Amino acid sequence: LEILLAEHSGFCFGVKRAIQMAKDASHQNQPIYTIGPLIHNPQMVNDLKEQGILLAEHPEALHDATVIVRSHGISKAEREMLVKNSNRIIDATCPYVCKAQDFVKLLCLEGYAVIIMGDKTHPEVTAMLSYCDENTSVVSNADELPEQTWNKLGVISQTTKNMAALRDLVQKLVPNVKELRLFNTICSATTLRQEATTALAKKSDLMVIIGGHNSSNTRMLAALCAGITETLHVETAVEIGLEQVSAKHSIGLTAGASTPDYLIVDVYNRINELTGDRTSVKSVEDIPVNKEESC
Amino acid sequence: LEILLAEHSGFCFGVKRAIQMAKDASHQNQPIYTIGPLIHNPQMVNDLKEQGILLAEHPEALHDATVIVRSHGISKAEREMLVKNSNRIIDATCPYVCKAQDFVKLLCLEGYAVIIMGDKTHPEVTAMLSYCDENTSVVSNADELPEQTWNKLGVISQTTKNMAALRDLVQKLVPNVKELRLFNTICSATTLRQEATTALAKKSDLMVIIGGHNSSNTRMLAALCAGITETLHVETAVEIGLEQVSAKHSIGLTAGASTPDYLIVDVYNRINELTGDRTSVKSVEDIPVNKEESC
Repeated sequence: LEILLAEHSGFCFGVKRAIQMAKDASHQNQPIYTIGPLIHNPQMVNDLKEQGILLAEHPEALHDATVIVRSHGISKAEREMLVKNSNRIIDATCPYVCKAQDFVKLLCLEGYAVIIMGDKTHPEVTAMLSYCDENTSVVSNADELPEQTWNKLGVISQTTKNMAALRDLVQKLVPNVKELRLFNTICSATTLRQEATTALAKKSDLMVIIGGHNSSNTRMLAALCAGITETLHVETAVEIGLEQVSAKHSIGLTAGASTPDYLIVDVYNRINELTGDRTSVKSVEDIPVNKEESC
Repeated sequence: LEILLAEHSGFCFGVKRAIQMAKDASHQNQPIYTIGPLIHNPQMVNDLKEQGILLAEHPEALHDATVIVRSHGISKAEREMLVKNSNRIIDATCPYVCKAQDFVKLLCLEGYAVIIMGDKTHPEVTAMLSYCDENTSVVSNADELPEQTWNKLGVISQTTKNMAALRDLVQKLVPNVKELRLFNTICSATTLRQEATTALAKKSDLMVIIGGHNSSNTRMLAALCAGITETLHVETAVEIGLEQVSAKHSIGLTAGASTPDYLIVDVYNRINELTGDRTSVKSVEDIPVNKEESC
């Protein structure tokens, strides 16, 4: 049995930055609060809790507190409320998400109707929407596009969406627009991770996707792999049973942008243990990586 | 044998307008000159000659003359030369082509690199290019796109190109751009004509495409039909022989934007004559039109 990890797995730049900013702030010996989970990974959120980084149950009740804005960003109204209540804000919004927010503001200001490709309820999208006017709509993919024509249409994407889906959406719009202004806000980490994952899936009997079931980008990895080979999406190692990994010759691992390295290590060791291999690693750097050129 | 004419065949709005402007001007009892053929149809150009509308062999030699700018437009340098030489300009540039020129100017002014989908040597495209800077390139289709990335890319099309080709070009660009601003300058007459032609081709044993061999939009109709059924591109009726139309059950006719009605009538009558049918019509209005919903 060969177990390989896809390149570009795990924490992205924005997530690493948000966690570092939270940890730096927690040195101040007073709790700091996050509006929504800091990252979309329940295990990591529990770890942070032990370091005094707490999920605010009622953000509107926070006064004079230290509050961290997570990498997805927050809505205009939430930000205004936090400021009004004299909280100190540490803004860990991913710089790529900030850019997407700026672009959506620009499009609205310049009179474009806007289509956001994303998940209606994802915090990144709801934050974006808070800066838009009523001429903005959210669609998951090309199939959800309304049958209409536009004089001036802006298009933008949630940063962790799939490039092929954006291409499909844009080409479908072309005959129905006089002007289309696309800001391609899919972040490069997302694209690289998806490409490396796809390449590994093509040569694996089984792909194990590690990450929060509430993580949009992790679910996207699972969906991509499911179209190629047998696929298992787990949050932690214990979810994997012998029946799933026995009789496999090649297992591929990948992890979403909000999956900490130790969960990847746990999964790798668990599969080896289940299949009777004594190999056990301490660090993600010790797991063999699939170095094949991505597609 | 059934012979049907595709809807939206023949002169488009811009061509009708240019011919009317030329004829109106020719009432002044002095020759008027066109820079390049007024429309891309040799037969029509000959007819106009008899009405005193002459093709200028050496535009730079024109002084104090009446000059008509054809529907394709002319380059910035040509216009400046005509003005400098005290000519009176009648501007019959198609309003849709004017718009495309305005958009290309806007894109250059706002710092976009520009890709024009069109024929490098077509007068509409060379006129557009004269308003661009060195960051502009012309491609016929998606296959000719350079392998590179762009921060700010503008895309525009020759007005008579195919919508599916533009969709394909744009979708291919999506992963390689941060911002893409498309002005969809394909004119609706072109799209309607192509759709109606495709619909008729699907139910015809033979499609006869009538129009100048030098007409871009006519050649596009021929290319579309050739993918569907047996196709014949002719400028005039005499090019059709018995061997091409005998043993056919349904023949479809269509004509480019620069094809005058009488050439369509000639072709219709010629096919009937060759196949032994005595039917002869005087006007294009008497030819049965394929009224099926276009695709």
